[in-house]
Amino acid sequence: MSSPRTLKAPALDPSTVTARTSSAYPTEAFRRVVTGRSKRALGDALGLTTFGVNLTTLASGAASALRHWHRRQDEFVFVLEGELTLVTDEGEQVLGPGTCAGFPGGVPNGHHFVNRTSTPATYLEIGDRLPGDAAEYPDDDLRVRATSAGPKYSHKDDGPYE
Amino acid sequence: MSSPRTLKAPALDPSTVTARTSSAYPTEAFRRVVTGRSKRALGDALGLTTFGVNLTTLASGAASALRHWHRRQDEFVFVLEGELTLVTDEGEQVLGPGTCAGFPGGVPNGHHFVNRTSTPATYLEIGDRLPGDAAEYPDDDLRVRATSAGPKYSHKDDGPYE
Repeated sequence: MSSPRTLKAPALDPSTVTARTSSAYPTEAFRRVVTGRSKRALGDALGLTTFGVNLTTLASGAASALRHWHRRQDEFVFVLEGELTLVTDEGEQVLGPGTCAGFPGGVPNGHHFVNRTSTPATYLEIGDRLPGDAAEYPDDDLRVRATSAGPKYSHKDDGPYE
Repeated sequence: MSSPRTLKAPALDPSTVTARTSSAYPTEAFRRVVTGRSKRALGDALGLTTFGVNLTTLASGAASALRHWHRRQDEFVFVLEGELTLVTDEGEQVLGPGTCAGFPGGVPNGHHFVNRTSTPATYLEIGDRLPGDAAEYPDDDLRVRATSAGPKYSHKDDGPYE
């Protein structure tokens, strides 16, 4: 997206940040949904702690996440390149560059983005880091709680996956 | 930036959000620095409360703010269009589209962005809303504290402006 630059902190060229493609989901079937997702943690790279900022690219066919909603965390997404289909309880909408979406914590409306086009789509995603967050996955036998040791996934009945 | 769309919450076309051009700075000389600045409060429009998201455009010659640093608030800026000059204690850097900057709360390095080009520049700015924030302005006789009634500006010796 950006031409090579030599920027120094507190500025940052996102292309210098290593992209993460892994997923912490507890099953291969869940992880397959986000295959083709690539996240650059810009906020962490800049030393920010009270919210996270990822520059995320979805290859054709990839999803941002399993459809979910957060009990506490506010989330914001701004589309930079390509087209993303937003899926919520109300159905689907296509978001292009320069459009955005927001998900206040505690609103039980599961959401995710899917790249249904043939070219990559890129967006910024921001989420706060208030303690005590959890997320619910209406379409899957999954829930997650934030813990000091990282996300703790379980079945809907709170039984462990592993 | 975006073509007209009909998006429904939780999605949003930023062009449907009214832009604010006013400034709360206590003197005309201070307000003049940000003349040409236009902010669309996307996060507020989407019902987000734990952080703010503004889509901000600086006309030629306008600055994002007086140079300042926050005692608590983390800030993040992502350039979308045009070029912005970032001014900090270390000097100046030019940021183009797709580059970003981050300012962790409590780091006493005053910063602002100035549009030194002949065309508008647009960026996203995100800041948390943790209580107890304040900001210092190294180049000006100004400081500000966040209060429940909004920002409270004063002289550096804490004397009131009005």
